[in-house]
Amino acid sequence: MPWFKNLIKISSTILNQSSSYKSMTPLVSPSLTQFLQFTKDYSTNNNGITNHHVAGLEPTKNDQKPRVVVLGSGWAGCRLMKDIDTNIYDVVCVSPRNHMVFTPLLASTCVGTLEFRSVAEPIGRIQPAISREPSSFFFLANCSAIDFDNHTWCLGQFGTLNFTRYLLSPIPPAQVQCQTVTEGVETVEPWNFNISYDKLVIASGAEALSFGIKGVSEHATFLREVYHAQEIRRKLLLNLMLSDVPGVSEEEKRRLLHCVVVGGGPTGVEFSGELSDFIRKDVHQRYSHVKDYIRANEILSSFDDRLRTYATKQLTKSGVRLVRGLVQDVQPEKIILSDGTEVPYGLLVWSTGVGPSPFVNSLDIPKAKGRIGIDEWLRVPSVQDVYSIGDCSGFLESTGRQVLPALAQVAERQGKYLASLLNKVGKEGGGHANSAQNMNFGDPFVYKHLGSMATIGRYKALVDLRESKVSSFF
Amino acid sequence: MPWFKNLIKISSTILNQSSSYKSMTPLVSPSLTQFLQFTKDYSTNNNGITNHHVAGLEPTKNDQKPRVVVLGSGWAGCRLMKDIDTNIYDVVCVSPRNHMVFTPLLASTCVGTLEFRSVAEPIGRIQPAISREPSSFFFLANCSAIDFDNHTWCLGQFGTLNFTRYLLSPIPPAQVQCQTVTEGVETVEPWNFNISYDKLVIASGAEALSFGIKGVSEHATFLREVYHAQEIRRKLLLNLMLSDVPGVSEEEKRRLLHCVVVGGGPTGVEFSGELSDFIRKDVHQRYSHVKDYIRANEILSSFDDRLRTYATKQLTKSGVRLVRGLVQDVQPEKIILSDGTEVPYGLLVWSTGVGPSPFVNSLDIPKAKGRIGIDEWLRVPSVQDVYSIGDCSGFLESTGRQVLPALAQVAERQGKYLASLLNKVGKEGGGHANSAQNMNFGDPFVYKHLGSMATIGRYKALVDLRESKVSSFF
Repeated sequence: MPWFKNLIKISSTILNQSSSYKSMTPLVSPSLTQFLQFTKDYSTNNNGITNHHVAGLEPTKNDQKPRVVVLGSGWAGCRLMKDIDTNIYDVVCVSPRNHMVFTPLLASTCVGTLEFRSVAEPIGRIQPAISREPSSFFFLANCSAIDFDNHTWCLGQFGTLNFTRYLLSPIPPAQVQCQTVTEGVETVEPWNFNISYDKLVIASGAEALSFGIKGVSEHATFLREVYHAQEIRRKLLLNLMLSDVPGVSEEEKRRLLHCVVVGGGPTGVEFSGELSDFIRKDVHQRYSHVKDYIRANEILSSFDDRLRTYATKQLTKSGVRLVRGLVQDVQPEKIILSDGTEVPYGLLVWSTGVGPSPFVNSLDIPKAKGRIGIDEWLRVPSVQDVYSIGDCSGFLESTGRQVLPALAQVAERQGKYLASLLNKVGKEGGGHANSAQNMNFGDPFVYKHLGSMATIGRYKALVDLRESKVSSFF
Repeated sequence: MPWFKNLIKISSTILNQSSSYKSMTPLVSPSLTQFLQFTKDYSTNNNGITNHHVAGLEPTKNDQKPRVVVLGSGWAGCRLMKDIDTNIYDVVCVSPRNHMVFTPLLASTCVGTLEFRSVAEPIGRIQPAISREPSSFFFLANCSAIDFDNHTWCLGQFGTLNFTRYLLSPIPPAQVQCQTVTEGVETVEPWNFNISYDKLVIASGAEALSFGIKGVSEHATFLREVYHAQEIRRKLLLNLMLSDVPGVSEEEKRRLLHCVVVGGGPTGVEFSGELSDFIRKDVHQRYSHVKDYIRANEILSSFDDRLRTYATKQLTKSGVRLVRGLVQDVQPEKIILSDGTEVPYGLLVWSTGVGPSPFVNSLDIPKAKGRIGIDEWLRVPSVQDVYSIGDCSGFLESTGRQVLPALAQVAERQGKYLASLLNKVGKEGGGHANSAQNMNFGDPFVYKHLGSMATIGRYKALVDLRESKVSSFF
């Protein structure tokens, strides 16, 4: 129930941000009278979802501010929303998560080094206009489809002609189709609604990869959201407590206290470091056998060899056992490696990178390795007024050049760049749909890799300042 | 899933208590080597639970500290554990909740006035010996039965003869039967274990009453635990967000934002006050129709008439609508009153007092109105070395005098009194089982009601300093 868990997060994180009620305010979007504009019933439903309600946000009129619709609330989308000029644009964010997660510190929240609320920031604080402006919204919903095509029929090739497009047309203009996230509420069935956009920013991110291994999603915990960290904390604590109750067998005790981390990327290593600190400092004397608690496939393949050797040495010193192996099957109490070894676990953290989400897969636009093709200005070249940033994009369509790494620093800089690009476009009168085709977009986006860092526990960290191979991309 | 919710609480509350890992330590009970003493397999199972493991804590020997077993971690049990002299006794606490809840402030956490962690305190902090001393434990478990009888066979009427009792006896001495709480862990089945006691304190509290009304436990939220407050916050927030998504009907919007509180006792009134503050200050301008959000049966029947009138006036002024009525049926989206009125709700908080728990009902000792009969020294007269304090007790067995109110101040003072009584008994050599029969217990427990207080929002509160009718009880 990711939604349920997200809400738990909301309640424990966002509401905790201050001790006054003020902290709730950013979550409350504009007034109900706004709903008067959601009257048109398009009744379109391209994606087979039961159509309980179809309403939405109609196209903006020429005397209204143009509307930027942002899909997602991660590094890319949030940085964009933070910097966008709300005097020029109305902002509508559609995401199943009403906060941004500061992912690099997520591993530290699993063992209590940091509080959950320290790594989450409500959207309404990142961009206060979303709770303040009458036509800016945050919608707790998933985007189910995008109707790019209807954007292209429009007669208005220039800003001044724009007002004609919905007067002349019998079909709705470009829009995103959304479905509310209602998991955890018994009494409300999800419903669909459409949002027309002037500019659309696809920043919906990627999904954790399980390589099709059976049992991963059922039994392992990822580490990408606050509710994942809460789940890890909960299991860790529960296993410690259960192992202390009379009657548990020695074997079961060893299993309960055996934490297995699959994946040796930064997240896996950082979590291992944190866990090792926690066990060494607090639990070690009492549960000496938990030393033997960790397995990882390969350590930090993105780092320099010497750094990897150093990390391996440090982690081993802290009691982390590193194992190379290929996971074949994940069962409720053990994983089975390809060589047949059975590894019992009490907690299994799965951190083997990310891949494309089903939503991005479903979009009918050019992609490479599941990531959306864009141009030098982060536009999706085949459709009008659509941009894509963050983990879901990266492939340079015109040249077929390599994909940028799925890193926070890429996403964040893309968001920053795109906000200033859209602000420039809006200032020059190209904010409304189909009004920026012939504009000069200025300097293209250039990504320069600034280096990587990963903590490995005991106040030690790796820093790799080499210029990456991808530094010259874009 | 109350256990799951408790763990959520643990993770978001206890681990948050400080930003270092130290905060986890109190939860981690003593070393695994202690389990060597859990070897005896009694194989008794009187309560029909599948017997996966039966182990436990054996009777203490005469050269060991006597063991006080405390069932419950509420006001009574925690105050007792706080004051008990751990140089004299080992303390074992059995409870499905590893923290104490400061219930009077619980209502304030529902809307973000207070953080959840501000109203919860881990048992290991209340009595550090539980994580420090090798034979003191906290067990995350429910007590399923108590074997009082086997306590009486003992030959040793005096402390000095005690060592003979388990040498001579073919049957185990007095013990409590427990079952681990493993809800939320798929891989572990609950198991049973037994704990022998020298002194047993039943402080397992009462349960929220639903008067057998259908649907209450499924659809309403109580307000007695931290996870209840989290659930209320979650629903409140979710409903506010859902009501802001395009496509929701006007009627559904009204329902989602309609909060109904059943019960006009202090908890119901305090929650109404907090909710009204929250809505007035943060949401009111945007959701003006939520004024119309509350119904309550009867206001503060335990308070003076004038105070009740004042509270009613103040709450009405804050936008709370008070309705007298009898709830007949609770459905997922509406309650039905006895006069046939249907009241749709988005959030239903049920706060109509407490009654006996199934565990207390199952105990074969004298009770009145479901509460355990005790004597002037809080002992359960019919059995040896058993005491009962807090909401689960109250009836004076010898005289049949009235039951003390189920209030935190009663429980807390009983816990304090009993701790000093047990310390005195222990100091005089009566700590071990069956060694305190002929002792002089000193002054009996006397309860003096100090008054009641309830906040009603807007920084206003009622204070009733009348001497209660029960003030002379005990």
